[in-house]
Order: sequence, then structure tokens, then C-alpha cells
Amino acid sequence: MTELNITHDPAQRSWVASANRPDHDFPLQNLPWGVFAVSGDRPRVGVAIGDQILDIAAANSAGFFTQSAKVAADAAAGDALNALMALGGSACSALRRQVFEMLVEGDGVAAVRARAQSAQLLLPAGAVEMGLPCKIEGFTDFLTSVDHLSRARRSTHPQNPVPEAFYHLPLAYNSRASSVRASGHNVVRPNGQSKAGDGAMYFGPATALDFELELGALVATGNPLGSPIPVRTAGGHVFGYCLLNDWSARDIQRWETTPLGPFLGKNFCTVISPWVVSAEALAPFRVPARPRGMGEPATLPYLHDREDSLSGGLDLQLQAWLTSERMRARDLAPVRVTTTNLRHLYWTFAQMIAHHTSNGCDLRTGDLIGSGTVSGPDLESRGCLAEFQEPLHLPDGSTRQWLLDGDELVFRARASKPGCASIGFGECRSMVLPALPWPVGG
Amino acid sequence: MTELNITHDPAQRSWVASANRPDHDFPLQNLPWGVFAVSGDRPRVGVAIGDQILDIAAANSAGFFTQSAKVAADAAAGDALNALMALGGSACSALRRQVFEMLVEGDGVAAVRARAQSAQLLLPAGAVEMGLPCKIEGFTDFLTSVDHLSRARRSTHPQNPVPEAFYHLPLAYNSRASSVRASGHNVVRPNGQSKAGDGAMYFGPATALDFELELGALVATGNPLGSPIPVRTAGGHVFGYCLLNDWSARDIQRWETTPLGPFLGKNFCTVISPWVVSAEALAPFRVPARPRGMGEPATLPYLHDREDSLSGGLDLQLQAWLTSERMRARDLAPVRVTTTNLRHLYWTFAQMIAHHTSNGCDLRTGDLIGSGTVSGPDLESRGCLAEFQEPLHLPDGSTRQWLLDGDELVFRARASKPGCASIGFGECRSMVLPALPWPVGG
Repeated sequence: MTELNITHDPAQRSWVASANRPDHDFPLQNLPWGVFAVSGDRPRVGVAIGDQILDIAAANSAGFFTQSAKVAADAAAGDALNALMALGGSACSALRRQVFEMLVEGDGVAAVRARAQSAQLLLPAGAVEMGLPCKIEGFTDFLTSVDHLSRARRSTHPQNPVPEAFYHLPLAYNSRASSVRASGHNVVRPNGQSKAGDGAMYFGPATALDFELELGALVATGNPLGSPIPVRTAGGHVFGYCLLNDWSARDIQRWETTPLGPFLGKNFCTVISPWVVSAEALAPFRVPARPRGMGEPATLPYLHDREDSLSGGLDLQLQAWLTSERMRARDLAPVRVTTTNLRHLYWTFAQMIAHHTSNGCDLRTGDLIGSGTVSGPDLESRGCLAEFQEPLHLPDGSTRQWLLDGDELVFRARASKPGCASIGFGECRSMVLPALPWPVGG
Repeated sequence: MTELNITHDPAQRSWVASANRPDHDFPLQNLPWGVFAVSGDRPRVGVAIGDQILDIAAANSAGFFTQSAKVAADAAAGDALNALMALGGSACSALRRQVFEMLVEGDGVAAVRARAQSAQLLLPAGAVEMGLPCKIEGFTDFLTSVDHLSRARRSTHPQNPVPEAFYHLPLAYNSRASSVRASGHNVVRPNGQSKAGDGAMYFGPATALDFELELGALVATGNPLGSPIPVRTAGGHVFGYCLLNDWSARDIQRWETTPLGPFLGKNFCTVISPWVVSAEALAPFRVPARPRGMGEPATLPYLHDREDSLSGGLDLQLQAWLTSERMRARDLAPVRVTTTNLRHLYWTFAQMIAHHTSNGCDLRTGDLIGSGTVSGPDLESRGCLAEFQEPLHLPDGSTRQWLLDGDELVFRARASKPGCASIGFGECRSMVLPALPWPVGG
């Protein structure tokens, strides 16, 4: 279990001035991991601090790291986080601690030296391109919001929007790992098959394009095939968390989904935020798993979760912001479409991992686990357009049932609590591009 | 398109005597690819010939390969086929041709030299362990047999066993790549959640364990995200084919499947045959795509397939054989549970690939694409136990509705045609082991 330590202390400040702005996502207490590239160069591992990025390889070469932090920094020498993630929590924690000591304000040896060498160690975040944090090995997407499920299936299953199994297990499907991209990747509206209103078959641009506001967890160490991960240790298998936009084409999805579930309606593109906020950084924001309400069944023992620093729920606010092409042309401010919180979820990530491996299925370092759309009980917490019953009004005078070409979604998330430094996730940004003409390539 | 060439000529024989036995799966005209290991050694790429394996690295070191065949052999120097597969069809074809020239009977320079050096180049297949042929990047499983679908859903959806969409598109779901293993890997009966007859929730050993007899295709070269593969070139993206046992726990599957499709009911283990029969070796056995019957809708243009050497259907007979523990103890012969043919499938692999990428989804080298259970119209062609209405009688006096611990499944496949050398796939073998006691590890 991760205990709170000096790296969580809200009184600590960084000599990187921008990190001390109270509204900044990346204060000294966050230190998220990511992979950046300076144009043309090979991607490298970095840690975000304010509006700067600490180059881990440069700091390692300059001799800043010792003992298990040095082992971790060596593992972070490649162009992806996988080797670092595979070391597990304690090595990552050791490296986090020594990075903290480099960046903290004061007269510590590491901090004084780092500040003196900052020109070699830091890069402005605006000057680099961020990529995927790791090779995504597998991608499993869960469905853990009862509010999302009941709203999204209201029109197709008015009698029984929430299948009984939802209350007994965290529903999930294998999603597609190959088409996961980092924030900034714009999604091309997919072509696909669906049934027109008159019953005729149709192949062409999807008309019901939607976003889904999710949180993703990246797996640090996996398990051998046939060796389930018990719920009480499952949280320790999470390296960190990112924002996730599970782009969805509802018309394609609806037509293809019986009996095998979502496929082409989802696998054309998924976008995640490039900065991975470590499980350790989020430890102060753990909350108990969502209590079961009246009439909700007891959880089977293999899924019993409890609050501690690694399992349990997370008090994390998530938001989705939309701009249309016309809004951007007129310099209109983005519209906040969703404000929600991860604590609304019916199942925790520890429960998802325990369930996922309960049949012996093996997880691997680099697996991405999506929470499913993070919706809550209030109307403002609807995490995708499929939950809306009324059209969404935009300040450019237009309305949306589904997304139009040129619409851009930006997701943000922030954990705040009295007595703690507030930390954020940066952004997950992606715009809708027009469909390709068909047939492609003749 | 692959034309027929000397490597398909049934008159050619090998100086490896076992390859000329008419019943052998691996005659000179087959030359399937695989990865073998001699105990303790690093795995290496080989080609099966009769009961021997040609060590590609040894042949390459001995200077047998030239030009693009040499490039291909260099790419096959690792411990998996991925780099070779990524070169695409013509390089693999060039290497196949030069391997053929080494192994053919007669006085060709390569053959005479290879025969003289056979002690360095060949290993008895019985002396090695076969592994997965490549790193499996992604695993997509289709559902393309109308006979399978209508029988398997008969009890749960008697009015409408075949959803309308089946006739318009090849149904599929993302399956789990991490738990794919090579023949010889025994499956541990999964624990899982299901609803007992009295409505009580249950977590424990799955009671409805089943096999599914499938053919798998391995992707050679993929496509960039957003660039669909048209059906007319889709066949050229297949490196080769293997047998696939999609182990399924029907009780887990039934309970979890709405609305997201199969998950834990499938992802505990999938077993494939280690030898990959190349698309080129199977070229003589191409047949037209299954014609549409009365009342079956026309296929949308993006899925129009036609017969040629790379797309179209395949005339390939597949069989499943079962033994129980008691049958093996009493030396009773295996029972043939299924005899079926790939030509029964409603959709071809070219159609599956074109559909899979039609929304822009990217395939990658090493992706595994399952055909879905290969069932046909006759009772003997039922490709899994879920299609059986009567119990299966075994010669040890017992019956099966579902598989019991100790049951072993062996799949085989063979392509035969007058005027052609008959080729086979070797075997895909896997036995059911008892479930782990729960909780695992406390």
C-alpha cells in the first residue's frame, strides 16, 4: 500500500515557478509520466512539472538518480514507459521521490544542482510533441456507470435498461488496442454499415458520432495466465491513470451489436491523454467504493473492495468541453458539456481487475483498462451525447444531437480536497474530421 | 495474386522420405512456417517437411538463400515470425521457393547440397517443442457460420436465432490476444460467475465448458489507421492459416454477455496450431465465396468478393476429435465429434478483413483473425457442443453435454483436390485441467 509521504505534502513548492500556480494541473505533488519528442528526435520519457518537462534520460546521465530510482530511470531510457511500468510500484515510487527532490524549492543538494543545470534538464512543454505513454498491449473497456447504462439504453430497452448482471459484475468487452492514439490526434468520421429509416442498408459516413468521457488505467505488472489477481492486491497493479475518449459511432454500434457487442462502432479510434498520473499521486483522493443502495444485491466475495490507498474509489472530477468550428472562428468560449466525478462509478478499478483475471485471463504491462463512460445521477454529469434526451445548444446558435465535422472535444480532470495539493491530468483533445470518400483506393 | 507455380506441382517429391507419404500433412507442396525450440535453446523459425523441421537460420548461415529469399531468411532470424510476416507476400514466396529447391528430390544444386548437410539443417519434429508462431498483436474473432449461429441460439432465441445483421456483415468482436497459446497448452477450467438454477449467484468452476473449431488467419502486413483495405486486395494481407480452438465457458458467457458480448466466457484461453500454412500453399484450394440463397440479401458493394487465388472461400476439411481420461486409460480410439468444411462459411476472410478495416481500424502484422466456429448444415458438421441437442456418447460408456476435466480435444484440417498434393495443418491439441481452488493466493 502506498502511504502518504513528503511527495504529497501540500506545503512543498517547486523552484519551477509555474508549478506553484494553484490552478496548474502539474504541481510538485503530481509529477505525471509521459513520452515527449522534440521535432525529429527519438521520443523520450519525461515528467511534467508546471509548464516544463523534466527529461528523465538527461537527469539520469547527469547522475541524479541512485539505487532503485537509478534502476527505474534506466528502465525509462527507451521511447515508451513499458519497461519502467514493468518494474512495479516501489521502483516507480523511488524514482518519483528523487524527481521530487530535484524539483522541490529549497537548499537540498539535488534541488540546487538541478536548478543550476535546468537548461539541460527541462524543456518547455509547448516546444515538444507528446505521444502515447506506452505501447498499449491490450485494451479492455468496462461499463461501470449505472447512470450511463440506464440513460443510454432507455430508448431501446425502456422496460429494462439495466441488465441484471450489471449489479453483480463489472461488465466489460475487449476493445481494440491498435487504434489508441494520444491527445491531439483527430478522429476521422468512420464509414460504416447501418440500416436507414426506410429499412434499406446503407454504407457511408456514420451519422451518430459520439464521445465517451472515461478514465483509463494502465497496468504496471500483470499476472501469469491462470493466476487471478485478488481484489485486495488489484489496485497495486495500476501504474497510473489517463483521460480516455472512447469515440463511438452509435448507428454502426446499434446495427452490429447483437450478439457479440461493440466492434466497428468503437474501434476506429480511441484517444487518451499523454500524461499518466500515478496511482501514488492520487493516493490522497481515494474514497470508499460506492456503497450499495436499497434493492442492490450484495457483492460476491471475490469482488469485495475496501478503501485503502490503492483500491477503493477515487474522488476525481472530470469535465468534457466542446467547441464547433464556427465557435472557434468566432472566438467563442468552449461549452462545458459534462461535469462528473469518478466516485459515481458502481465498480472500482480494483474490482474491474479482480473480475478481469478471475477466470485466469492474464493482464500484461501496458494493458489499458477503461472505466466506461463516467456518468453520474445529475443531468450535468451525462458523459456522452447518447444520454441526452434534449438537443445540446451551442453558443454559435446551432444544436447537436450528435457530433458534426469540426467539433472538438477536450477532456480535463482534477482531484481536489481540503488540505491537499490539487492535481490535474492535462487535457485529452481530439477533433472530428470529415469521413473519407468511399470507395477508398478504388 | 499468387499464381500456381512449381511449389504446387503434385509430381514433385522430397528427398525427406516421410514427406512423400500420401497421408502426411507436410508434403513438399505445403512447407508451413513455425517456431520451434530445442530444450533450453532460444526458439527459432522452421519449416515442416514430413516428420522433420528445416532450421531456417541454419540454412541461412550455410548460404542457401539469395536475393529476396535471403532478405526473408534474415527477417526470420528472430524467435517469432513477425518480422518475416511484415515483409509481405513476395518475400515469403521467394523464401518458400528456395526452401522448396533445397528439399525437392533430384539433382538440383541446392537439393544435393542440402541433402549432404541434412544433419545440420534438419531436426526430427518429435525432438523439439513448438511455440506460438508469432507475437499475437490483436485477436479478432468473427462469427461467420449461419449453421453455428442458428443452432447455438436456438434455445435462447427460438423465434429469431439469426439476427438480421448476420446476413449483411461478418459479425465480430475483439477477443483477447494475451491468452492465446500454442497446441499442447492445456486449459484450466475457469472459475466464473453465473446464475444458478434457483436464481442464486454463484462463483466457481464453469460447468458448461465447450470447444469451438475454428480456422485462424494471421495478418502479414496491416494498414495505417484511417486507410481501409478494399475487399479485392484483402486476401493479400493474410500470411497464412492455423487451427484455432476458441475455448468457451457457456455459463459464464450467457450471464455476462448483455449488452457487451463475450468476455470472461472466452478470454481465459485460446489454443492455436503451431504450424502456419501459407496462403500460397492453399492457393489450389480456393473456391468461390458461398453463393447467396433465396431470401438472403445482396451483399453491399464494399463486401463483394470474388474467386481468385487470394480471396474467395477455401475448400478445407476440418475435424475435431475427443478423448476422455478413461478412454485414454483404456486405449480407446478418439471419437470424431465434428467433420466440417470451411466452404460452409457465409463470409470469406477477405470480406472479414475488408469489413474490419472499413471504418478505418488498423490491422497490424501478427493480428490473429478467427473465422468463428466452422459449422455446416449436417449434424456431423456441428463445430461445438453448444450446437448439440442430444448428449454425445463416448465409447467409455459416458455421455457429454459439456466437457469434463481430462477431456482432450484434437483438431485437424486437410485440403484435398484431384490433381493436387493434399496438405494438412498438423494438430491443435489441448486438454481440460481441473479448476483452481478459490480463493487463489488467499
